[in-house]
Amino acid sequence: MMELLMQLPKGFRFAGVSAGIKSRAGAKDVTLIVSDTPCTAAGVYTTNLIVAAPVVLSRSRTPSANIRGIVVNSGNANACTGQQGDLDAAEMTRLAAANLPQELHAHAEDFLVMSTGIIGRKLPMAKIQSGIEQAAKHLGNTQTHFLDACDGIMTTDAFRKTAHRSIRSSKGSHSIVGMCKGAGMIGPKMATMLAIVVTDAPIDAIVAQRILQAAANRSFNCISVEGHMSTNDSLVLLAQAPSKSVEALNDTELADFEAALTELCIELAKKIPDDGEGATHLIEICIKGANTQADADAIARNIALSNLVKTAITGGDPNWGRIVSAAGYAGVPIQPKRTALKINGLPLFDAGEPLAFDAKQVSESIRASKLTLIELDVGLGPGSATHWTTDLNTEYVRFNSEYTT
Amino acid sequence: MMELLMQLPKGFRFAGVSAGIKSRAGAKDVTLIVSDTPCTAAGVYTTNLIVAAPVVLSRSRTPSANIRGIVVNSGNANACTGQQGDLDAAEMTRLAAANLPQELHAHAEDFLVMSTGIIGRKLPMAKIQSGIEQAAKHLGNTQTHFLDACDGIMTTDAFRKTAHRSIRSSKGSHSIVGMCKGAGMIGPKMATMLAIVVTDAPIDAIVAQRILQAAANRSFNCISVEGHMSTNDSLVLLAQAPSKSVEALNDTELADFEAALTELCIELAKKIPDDGEGATHLIEICIKGANTQADADAIARNIALSNLVKTAITGGDPNWGRIVSAAGYAGVPIQPKRTALKINGLPLFDAGEPLAFDAKQVSESIRASKLTLIELDVGLGPGSATHWTTDLNTEYVRFNSEYTT
Repeated sequence: MMELLMQLPKGFRFAGVSAGIKSRAGAKDVTLIVSDTPCTAAGVYTTNLIVAAPVVLSRSRTPSANIRGIVVNSGNANACTGQQGDLDAAEMTRLAAANLPQELHAHAEDFLVMSTGIIGRKLPMAKIQSGIEQAAKHLGNTQTHFLDACDGIMTTDAFRKTAHRSIRSSKGSHSIVGMCKGAGMIGPKMATMLAIVVTDAPIDAIVAQRILQAAANRSFNCISVEGHMSTNDSLVLLAQAPSKSVEALNDTELADFEAALTELCIELAKKIPDDGEGATHLIEICIKGANTQADADAIARNIALSNLVKTAITGGDPNWGRIVSAAGYAGVPIQPKRTALKINGLPLFDAGEPLAFDAKQVSESIRASKLTLIELDVGLGPGSATHWTTDLNTEYVRFNSEYTT
Repeated sequence: MMELLMQLPKGFRFAGVSAGIKSRAGAKDVTLIVSDTPCTAAGVYTTNLIVAAPVVLSRSRTPSANIRGIVVNSGNANACTGQQGDLDAAEMTRLAAANLPQELHAHAEDFLVMSTGIIGRKLPMAKIQSGIEQAAKHLGNTQTHFLDACDGIMTTDAFRKTAHRSIRSSKGSHSIVGMCKGAGMIGPKMATMLAIVVTDAPIDAIVAQRILQAAANRSFNCISVEGHMSTNDSLVLLAQAPSKSVEALNDTELADFEAALTELCIELAKKIPDDGEGATHLIEICIKGANTQADADAIARNIALSNLVKTAITGGDPNWGRIVSAAGYAGVPIQPKRTALKINGLPLFDAGEPLAFDAKQVSESIRASKLTLIELDVGLGPGSATHWTTDLNTEYVRFNSEYTT
């Protein structure tokens, strides 16, 4: 597998184990990532006001220059769980710190925490405890350890989602590795899902936070499956903390790092709608010519969230009126007479007029490829944006009608 | 059929005929409604910036005290049809006026126009012309004429949608009758679909416009199927124009009229998600305790637009976390600790804590009824709102994947 070629960042250990939280026997559901020394941590979280306990706790602890790691469980979101949920999230960080190998002495407040899975059920803390104990014993820094950690954060994902980049600085070569999970309840207004990026590049906490937010805005904030914003969305970056012996990256190096991080986040983010529950198409929506980038984002988002657009792609149906009309109620300026639409490179609408086109050709171009490209130029200004979503098909509906019962 | 018991308003004539615009042989697709004398007309239209030609034309002609009627075609939306579309919409009003029986002499600019159907195809004007000629010959004021007119505006509707009310004033008894169409591309931000309300109550144009907008805000603006705002949504009220011999309703009578009109519009509006493409449930979402009515509307809308909420209802799944989390990203204040949720009267979540409940009982209550009632009290203030939507099931997806191809 290609993902095995990545170089892991120095100074971090990974583990993923099965604690029996998920119903499927042997499925990994507890992940632990630990830094050998205090590291930099930045986080971007859901803006949902109904927010899970682990998000509240992790948000209060980032950005930071003194984090030792992150503990994650899948199979239960610890969301809408009241006061017990807050206590359980804190207890998870305590257990993570308490069970570390002796040489890695840490405190509860040095840990971040994430949970993902069903909303509204209390965490099974006995299972969580035994899972964290077991994970702490299995920490290591090989590819296998990293991939186990990836498996431990997955829920309805059909495949593992990882990405990696490397940059060079005056201090040598630095590795950036990332993992994420998510296939449903993916909304476009915030860093969606769980994602963890780890790097041995030395970066200050405040800088890391700024760079991570910018990368999220071009990646995880540009994807959707059905637009339902989760209570648990979290994106965390762990980086080497600069010290007297290791200076932080300089501005040029930081620009390289930010570019690599953004690329990595886009690669990770696209894997989520590509794995959308039941999805047969990944839809890439490129908006050009909006007055501003924010306007382009609004138009792209509106198209991405239209069930009528999504079902048309499912059916290989060149029903372009659905795309243009979705752009029209995005709440930002658009003029039909300046607007042009292409699907998979084939022009369908231009300057307010429908074009003659070969419906069969467009239809076949949609059916022939997993990726469908929608290009809308609204002809007003320099604003552009690219978003990614899934089609909507009967499998998605079947899956989500039968999720808990 | 119950709908046959309505009293038609005096002074209006109706017709619906088949002109071959729809592919199904004999399906009615041209409707004509004519007032014997100049009447009051008010209109509420889509706010989509990609707007159909008939909407642009009708909007420019309402409110008015001098309208003679409205001409409607189904099977083609005359949207995204460029300059020819504008000419065709105007030509429809010219044809309606020119073909009236001699005693009803009128001009093109005295007519409103609506179109509904596929986007992006030019109107088949030869068929439209023969349809209007035929409709003008068949005008009448019996129940049959009225129901023919209802049929002429339908597209994917599974059933005809009518409602009626009557009020008494010092001038006697007044009838209010309404028809609407719509099953898909139903978004909640504006008067959705096509709807026509006709009354012999005497009302001034400016007053009619104000009352119609208020009624739309509590009815057609509170429904959704998938939230895709149409290019053609239009709601028009035709009323008797007050004159020297017939005074306008006084303030008390107007209040009665407004209440009856709002009731009628809600009754009509609910029929649309009840007929949502493939829908097996009508979902009624009652929000209480929001700071303002606008906040309550925002919360209701977010829940109504969540595919995850809709598929949970399809599956009879008491997955209440999806409802609460949808409320959390509506962009308005909400505090978990003050929030309470019931489904079909059964309490599931209260004061930030999940309640113990019988999942089987909730599930059965959803499966047993076409109507599912979601009640969310956010415990902050006096704002309330009720919205209606459909579930989301495989039939909707299948239908909309195969619409044009």
